[in-house]
Amino acid sequence: VAERESQIVLGLDPDPLALWPEADDAAAGALGAAPAARAAAGVLAHCRAVIDAVGDAVVAVKPQVACFERLGAPGWHALAATIEHARAAGLLVLADGKRGDIDVTATAYAQGFLGATPGVGGAGGDGIIPGLGADALTVNPYMGLDTLRSFAAVGRAHDAGLFVLVRTSNPGAADLEDEPLARGGTVWERVAQLVAALGDEHRAPVSGLSDIGAVLGATRPEHLTRARELLPHAIFLLPGVGAQGGRVEDLAPAFAPGRAAGLVTASRSIVRAHEQGGGASPATAARAEAQRLRAAAWALG
Amino acid sequence: VAERESQIVLGLDPDPLALWPEADDAAAGALGAAPAARAAAGVLAHCRAVIDAVGDAVVAVKPQVACFERLGAPGWHALAATIEHARAAGLLVLADGKRGDIDVTATAYAQGFLGATPGVGGAGGDGIIPGLGADALTVNPYMGLDTLRSFAAVGRAHDAGLFVLVRTSNPGAADLEDEPLARGGTVWERVAQLVAALGDEHRAPVSGLSDIGAVLGATRPEHLTRARELLPHAIFLLPGVGAQGGRVEDLAPAFAPGRAAGLVTASRSIVRAHEQGGGASPATAARAEAQRLRAAAWALG
Repeated sequence: VAERESQIVLGLDPDPLALWPEADDAAAGALGAAPAARAAAGVLAHCRAVIDAVGDAVVAVKPQVACFERLGAPGWHALAATIEHARAAGLLVLADGKRGDIDVTATAYAQGFLGATPGVGGAGGDGIIPGLGADALTVNPYMGLDTLRSFAAVGRAHDAGLFVLVRTSNPGAADLEDEPLARGGTVWERVAQLVAALGDEHRAPVSGLSDIGAVLGATRPEHLTRARELLPHAIFLLPGVGAQGGRVEDLAPAFAPGRAAGLVTASRSIVRAHEQGGGASPATAARAEAQRLRAAAWALG
Repeated sequence: VAERESQIVLGLDPDPLALWPEADDAAAGALGAAPAARAAAGVLAHCRAVIDAVGDAVVAVKPQVACFERLGAPGWHALAATIEHARAAGLLVLADGKRGDIDVTATAYAQGFLGATPGVGGAGGDGIIPGLGADALTVNPYMGLDTLRSFAAVGRAHDAGLFVLVRTSNPGAADLEDEPLARGGTVWERVAQLVAALGDEHRAPVSGLSDIGAVLGATRPEHLTRARELLPHAIFLLPGVGAQGGRVEDLAPAFAPGRAAGLVTASRSIVRAHEQGGGASPATAARAEAQRLRAAAWALG
C-alpha cells in the first residue's frame, strides 16, 4: 500500500456478455473452439486489458473465482493466466473464492489457491503441483475455527493470508450474521472474535497487522467502528462501494490502524465506468474511476 | 433411492498420494506431462475405477471439488469426466463445493455446477457454455437467505437441488453453529428454519420431499431428531460415518419421512477399505464396505 500509494483492489468478475472490446479479437481468434474455450479466451483478454488500464492505480486484484470456474477447465486456465498477468504488473492477488470446509478438504482448497499439492510423483522434486499463487483467499467461517485454522496453516507456510467473511454487504446478511446471541453481541461479532484469536498468532513486525483479515461490507459503515474494536490488527477488505451503494468517505474507521489496514474493492464501478456516459473508452473511464477512488481513500489516512 | 435400493452416497476425495493401482497406468501414460496433468490423469482413472467397483451399491457420488480444483485446469477436466462417468453409470451427482456468495456470484457458481452460462456468442444457440451437470450442490448459509435463493433459482431451472450446511460433523461446529441465540435455539437451528422456508417453495408431488436439503453431520445423532422437527420435508445429507466416528445405526431420525429422506455419505471408509487388512483388492474391499453400509441403512427403513 505504501509503495503503490493505493488501497484500492480491482475486482475482476468477468461476464462473457459484458467484456471490453479487447475480448472480441481473442474470442474471434478462438472461433471454431467450444463455447467455453471461446468465452475463456475473451475473459482472459478482457482481464488483461483491465489490469493494463488500471493497474497503476490499485494495489491488488480480486478475481471472482465463480466467474472463471463456470467456464470449466478453460476458465480455470484463464484464472491462472489472469493471476500471472496481475503479478507481472506488481499487484497482489486476493482470490475471492469464499471457500470453507473441514481439515483435509480445507487444506486441499488452500493448496490450490495459496500453496501447492504433492503430486503422483511423490512429495519431493518434480511431483509438486503448483497452486495459483494467490496472496490471500477469502474464506467462510460458518463451520468454525478449526476449518479456518486448516486454511491458515497452508497460507502461513506460503506467506499468504486469509480474509474471513465477517459482516457482508448483502441484505440477507441480516438473516444470520446480525442475529443477537444469548451471550451478547451478534453472530458476526462472534466471528470477529474468532478471527481476532486466529490473527493474533501471526502479526507483521512493523505494521502490527495480522495475516487473517476480515471482509466487511462497505454498505453499513456503522459496523466498521465496532469491527475495529474487535479486530484492532486485522486488514479489512471492504466490498460494496459503488454499485451496492457504499461510499469511500464513510470508511475511515477501517483505516484507524494505518493506511494498509483497509482495502477498498471495486469491480463494476471501475470496469463498467464507461457505461455512465461521457464517451470515454472503457480503459480511460476505468482508469479515471480507479484514480478517483484511490484519491478518496488516500485522503482519509 | 427406491430404484437402486440404496441410500449410500460415494464420496470421491482423491488424493494424488493415495490412488488405486488403476491410477498408476494413467499417470505413467501421461509421463512427460506437467505434474498437474499427470496427477489429474491418475485421479480420473482412480475415480472411474472406484465408481466401477461400487456403483451398483450406491445411489449417488459426491465429488469433493477441492480435490480436483487444486490440480488446476486438468483437475477441472478430471472433475467433468468423473461426473460424466458417474452419470453413465446411472448415479446422481452431488457436487460438494460448499459454495456461498451474493446474487450474481451465486448465480455464476450455480451456472457452473447446475446450469449453464450464456457465452460470448450470445444467449441463443451455440454460445451456451454447459455446466458440470450436477444434480445438487452443497452450499454455505452464512451470508443469508438471499444468497441461497440465487443458487436455488438456477437449480430449479435445471431440475437440480441444494444441500445447505446446517450442523456439520467437525469439532469446530461448536464455535458458531451451536451458539445459542437470544431469540432461543442455536445458530444451526436458525439456519434450519431458513432452509425449511426456502424448501417449502418446491416439494416433489409424491414423496413430499423438497429440493433444498440439509447437511447434518452423522457424528452427533442427537441433533437429527431436532433437525427433523425443523425440517420435516428436507433430504438430509449425512457425512461423518466411518472415519469420523458416526454409525449408520444411529441415523434413524433422518429416514422418518421415508427412505429417500436420508443419504449417507462415505468416502475414505469405502475407498480405503482395503487398508483395514484382510488382503482383498481395493475394488473388492470397497464393494464389500459399500454393500455393508447399504444394508445397514436400508434396515433402518
